[in-house]
Amino acid sequence: MRLQLSAATLLFTLVGAASASPRMEIAERLRDQAMAGSEGYAIVESLTTEIGPRLAGTEDEARAVAWAEAKLRELGYDKVWKEPVTIPLWLRRHERARVLGPFAQPLLITALGHSVGTEGPLRGEVVELPDLSALRAIDDDRLRGKIVFINLRMERHRDGAGYGKAADGRSEGPREAAARGARAFLLRSVGTDSHRFPHTGNTRRAVYGRDIPAAALSNPDADQLSRLLKRGPVEIEVDIDAGFAGEVVTHNVIGEVTGSEPDSGIVLIGAHLDSWDLGTGAVDDGAGIGITFAAGAAIAALEETPRRSVRVVAFAAEEVGLLGAKGYAETNAAILDRHVFAMESDFGAGRIHGFRAGIHAEKWPELERLAGVLAPLGIEVDRSPGGPGPDILPLWEGGVPWGALRQDGTDYFDYHHTADDTLDKIDPKALDQQVAAYAALTWAIADSDIDLRPVPPRASSTPAKPVATEPVPPAGS
Amino acid sequence: MRLQLSAATLLFTLVGAASASPRMEIAERLRDQAMAGSEGYAIVESLTTEIGPRLAGTEDEARAVAWAEAKLRELGYDKVWKEPVTIPLWLRRHERARVLGPFAQPLLITALGHSVGTEGPLRGEVVELPDLSALRAIDDDRLRGKIVFINLRMERHRDGAGYGKAADGRSEGPREAAARGARAFLLRSVGTDSHRFPHTGNTRRAVYGRDIPAAALSNPDADQLSRLLKRGPVEIEVDIDAGFAGEVVTHNVIGEVTGSEPDSGIVLIGAHLDSWDLGTGAVDDGAGIGITFAAGAAIAALEETPRRSVRVVAFAAEEVGLLGAKGYAETNAAILDRHVFAMESDFGAGRIHGFRAGIHAEKWPELERLAGVLAPLGIEVDRSPGGPGPDILPLWEGGVPWGALRQDGTDYFDYHHTADDTLDKIDPKALDQQVAAYAALTWAIADSDIDLRPVPPRASSTPAKPVATEPVPPAGS
Repeated sequence: MRLQLSAATLLFTLVGAASASPRMEIAERLRDQAMAGSEGYAIVESLTTEIGPRLAGTEDEARAVAWAEAKLRELGYDKVWKEPVTIPLWLRRHERARVLGPFAQPLLITALGHSVGTEGPLRGEVVELPDLSALRAIDDDRLRGKIVFINLRMERHRDGAGYGKAADGRSEGPREAAARGARAFLLRSVGTDSHRFPHTGNTRRAVYGRDIPAAALSNPDADQLSRLLKRGPVEIEVDIDAGFAGEVVTHNVIGEVTGSEPDSGIVLIGAHLDSWDLGTGAVDDGAGIGITFAAGAAIAALEETPRRSVRVVAFAAEEVGLLGAKGYAETNAAILDRHVFAMESDFGAGRIHGFRAGIHAEKWPELERLAGVLAPLGIEVDRSPGGPGPDILPLWEGGVPWGALRQDGTDYFDYHHTADDTLDKIDPKALDQQVAAYAALTWAIADSDIDLRPVPPRASSTPAKPVATEPVPPAGS
Repeated sequence: MRLQLSAATLLFTLVGAASASPRMEIAERLRDQAMAGSEGYAIVESLTTEIGPRLAGTEDEARAVAWAEAKLRELGYDKVWKEPVTIPLWLRRHERARVLGPFAQPLLITALGHSVGTEGPLRGEVVELPDLSALRAIDDDRLRGKIVFINLRMERHRDGAGYGKAADGRSEGPREAAARGARAFLLRSVGTDSHRFPHTGNTRRAVYGRDIPAAALSNPDADQLSRLLKRGPVEIEVDIDAGFAGEVVTHNVIGEVTGSEPDSGIVLIGAHLDSWDLGTGAVDDGAGIGITFAAGAAIAALEETPRRSVRVVAFAAEEVGLLGAKGYAETNAAILDRHVFAMESDFGAGRIHGFRAGIHAEKWPELERLAGVLAPLGIEVDRSPGGPGPDILPLWEGGVPWGALRQDGTDYFDYHHTADDTLDKIDPKALDQQVAAYAALTWAIADSDIDLRPVPPRASSTPAKPVATEPVPPAGS
């Protein structure tokens, strides 16, 4: 026993001296242990069961913040704290729509994030348009007093490539329609499913002029409305009660495994804690919370300590405009230069197939040596450009090198932002693979002295998902 | 031209003389023409688009009745009429449920058919039971003042074999729970999907004593409630506004292609026109309406006339207790003996794989000769016992021989009785195969003099689906 300890001490000393070489055997062990069974699923089961939906700024999200603090402590992180973020509270109260006239029937809708209400039932004739470009090109006269309906079906791709185009209609459509005199805005849901779930998601507010009520139709309802429009003019009634309700304080929650040389930097991994209010936020983004909390916990449970600190951040208020992420970058502005690498898991619960990073070409060989630990997981290094998880964007803008462990998102947009985003959509074994990847790569970078700065600027890449970036509205608006 | 006509007249005369042998080449032609493209999909597209949901007794169902009359006329039936049926009107106004306490969150429910309301929010502790037998076996003391939750997952089978056991809990559970002093009843939806759609469906009313509010949870919500119960006692609040609103008159709609020898009998095919209020009733039972309307229309469009008359019946108020079917049997009691055969399409839109009939063994060789026309459609004759479509049950009890063209129902209970029962769930080519089968077999039997009476009694078989059979409640109850 004494001999073993001495040997371990000797090894530690030797490795410690040669700090340029991270202890990759520990990265491999973390990887293999997670593959044999991780805490990832138990964590997302706990979050989605005990908290359920957790819309940013609500009491539900506050319960999630308390849950995250307790869970990180329970998982053995040696420092756990929270940092306040002030956000506008947006609430959905009710939403209804129905076709009037000879073909009278209900339509299933959900208000889009930051939509204003209708102030009682609002009636109007529907004008169907194929996409946002058609809306931008149309004569104002055709839209004045009408209800705009953008009917673009999102394409299914493993990497979510169909999202950008469809989500542009959601982000920009309402204010473009408002600027042309429309009374309300309807969108075919940004989603790849054929179920009767409307997909919510954020919209940008009008910079000048008025906002109009905005809602999404489920894919079958969009089909139905389009079929009705082929039979002649369609008048509908929309009744939405939603809107802003003042400013509130929410929190980012942070757990840290302090490194043996804390001044040598911080490796940040994270996910967002808030969810939309419709489902229980399992694939978006309970999965990411489960993966990153478990990966950090596996490192915390080691007898060995990484050289750099590992920080796991549960970001607040992502869905409503990356507000937690922006808050993190502001609060931690003085130490952003100590953030040596940052990754976010926010693309569901599908297996990871690739690894990208936001670094210059000459840095790749060194990073690729560390990322070799991922190869047995079926993860290929991919040097092409791209973007990180959305909450990493403010860090990128602050000069922090980012990585992206790229998941299979083939079915992600079947559930994304719907009531159907629930725990049963997650395969526990797929989570294990992701915990393995995050734990192993995080260790490898944290235990190394790799320096990936400076980073290529954000303009050269496309963000992973479009988000509202308007200034927050005044309280109570 | 004149020569051709004369030849046709001669052929007709010859065949007409040998009336025991139906003109099977016409059956084959009907089959092949339907396979090349039928009217089935266009009919269900019209019904589900122009009417949408059509709950029995509502204005929506009245619009469907007018639609059916107009559609049968447009399709060339030579007689079209409707027959009144008086039914109790049951309406759903709203339904909500939420978990109270530290894990507060909403649960998605739908009131079960004929449920009473809660008269404001009702709170109680949940008692989970595995199935109806466990409910029947339990001590009353454990249920008094509680909310019963039957958590039985329906099994997936091609022939819907899992339905009976799960639906028993729905039909019988509420009154069994009420008899034991429970305050409300919750059921894991009778459905094979894993989406957040609660499945509605009818319940039997208490014969003695009080009724209690009854609702179904979606499968993911049932999982969630069960997980919460593993953490300790769970109190929930249920708020249902639903109930009876007097008696109303609805109608069966009938289209007939009159035979060349009308006294030789009637071959009846049909489907039900009403649907639950949640979806647009595409697979249940717009598909059946499309299939049978198109099959009859194909016969009406022939230059030839079958010997017996073909009747297509759009039954009213099936979902709320086979009320249209019972009405049809009563209204037509004097001519039930002229109904030589009856079939209903009410099991979705999947392809037909088998044919059964409710006849004695010695009648099979003769029927099998006619059913041979189905073989190229991949439909096998199956002499084992079974039951007809639900609306045929009153005819069976009246001595009418029945047939069942058995569909692949593997995914039927994914959509059945949910908001997700919409047109996009139907494959138009699969409908063509079914129209082909109905048209060809209906012709073959109508053009023959086959006599399949007397029929084996109903007791020897299991009905296709359990239904409420209690006396209808008094108006306004």
